[in-house]
Amino acid sequence: PADGVDPATFRTWLQGAVFDEDTRKVLVVQDRNKMKNAWKFPGGLSEPGEDIGDTAVREVWEETGIKSEFKALLSIRQQHGAPNAFGKSDMYIICRLKPLSFHINFCPHECLKCEWMNLTDLAEADDTTPITRRVANLLLYGHREGFEKIDLSMRELPSVHRGLFYKLYHKELPELYENIARMD
Amino acid sequence: PADGVDPATFRTWLQGAVFDEDTRKVLVVQDRNKMKNAWKFPGGLSEPGEDIGDTAVREVWEETGIKSEFKALLSIRQQHGAPNAFGKSDMYIICRLKPLSFHINFCPHECLKCEWMNLTDLAEADDTTPITRRVANLLLYGHREGFEKIDLSMRELPSVHRGLFYKLYHKELPELYENIARMD
Repeated sequence: PADGVDPATFRTWLQGAVFDEDTRKVLVVQDRNKMKNAWKFPGGLSEPGEDIGDTAVREVWEETGIKSEFKALLSIRQQHGAPNAFGKSDMYIICRLKPLSFHINFCPHECLKCEWMNLTDLAEADDTTPITRRVANLLLYGHREGFEKIDLSMRELPSVHRGLFYKLYHKELPELYENIARMD
Repeated sequence: PADGVDPATFRTWLQGAVFDEDTRKVLVVQDRNKMKNAWKFPGGLSEPGEDIGDTAVREVWEETGIKSEFKALLSIRQQHGAPNAFGKSDMYIICRLKPLSFHINFCPHECLKCEWMNLTDLAEADDTTPITRRVANLLLYGHREGFEKIDLSMRELPSVHRGLFYKLYHKELPELYENIARMD
């Protein structure tokens, strides 16, 4: 029933991995009010009608005071039965962001700590989460061999509903495959 | 409030692109009750607690009678304000599946037509949707140059919540980056 749908419906959790290619540092936080103080990427819940990349940029800004821009979608996590998800499944999306500012001014209500950390240090850190370490490894791979190896780029396409558009994320298609002519 | 959350919360739409590498055919359907009869991939809504790949395999089975297995996640779509989404944003995930059976027995309540179509024909078809054509191009790219170019592979990792695991999808990491030692 349209009127009875909870506003949480269709919302998604976003994290932003803000990586600076020049200094090879990545923005990490430790959440307040967690049992284990582990380094992770800043993030939060999307607003209704908000684009994936916009959520990541907004949450990073609110939590750390860093301005950034969306570069690509990196990873999706699906988890069932987590205590904060009302026994349902939750979806978590991690984006790659590029910093536009560097002075940290973190929200003390949300964060215990916030810093720019060497990417290799994060990949080797003990006090982090498995998902953060894994995305750090993914960023190292992208930084060393080209971000096209890890990025899902975004494209806007027309919806079947007249006047609407949607955003589609997948591995970048080479020019040759953008508009297929008969190749066989 | 935990008790007031609509069951639709955290649900996601899935589509399965069932591609047979031997015959280079892909499974497509035309939905019943649509204004425009366009070829697309079979799919539907996830059940609470159901894994992404399991939803795609189940929906393909229910809609077409084809058995398949999950290979990789290919693409994510985010759309705002679609008429069937109660004015909210919806998330759509497209998976690559491998067929385990080939005899079509489609559900006449859901489908008008169902067939195995040459992948190149789908990529060039007029009576399809932009998203289907684009994923067809992506499959052609993967088939010709290796599916590691387009696939997001799945890995299970331990949750911070004891005893829970989650599934993480991203581009496959080369062995070298799986466990980073100091490389600088």
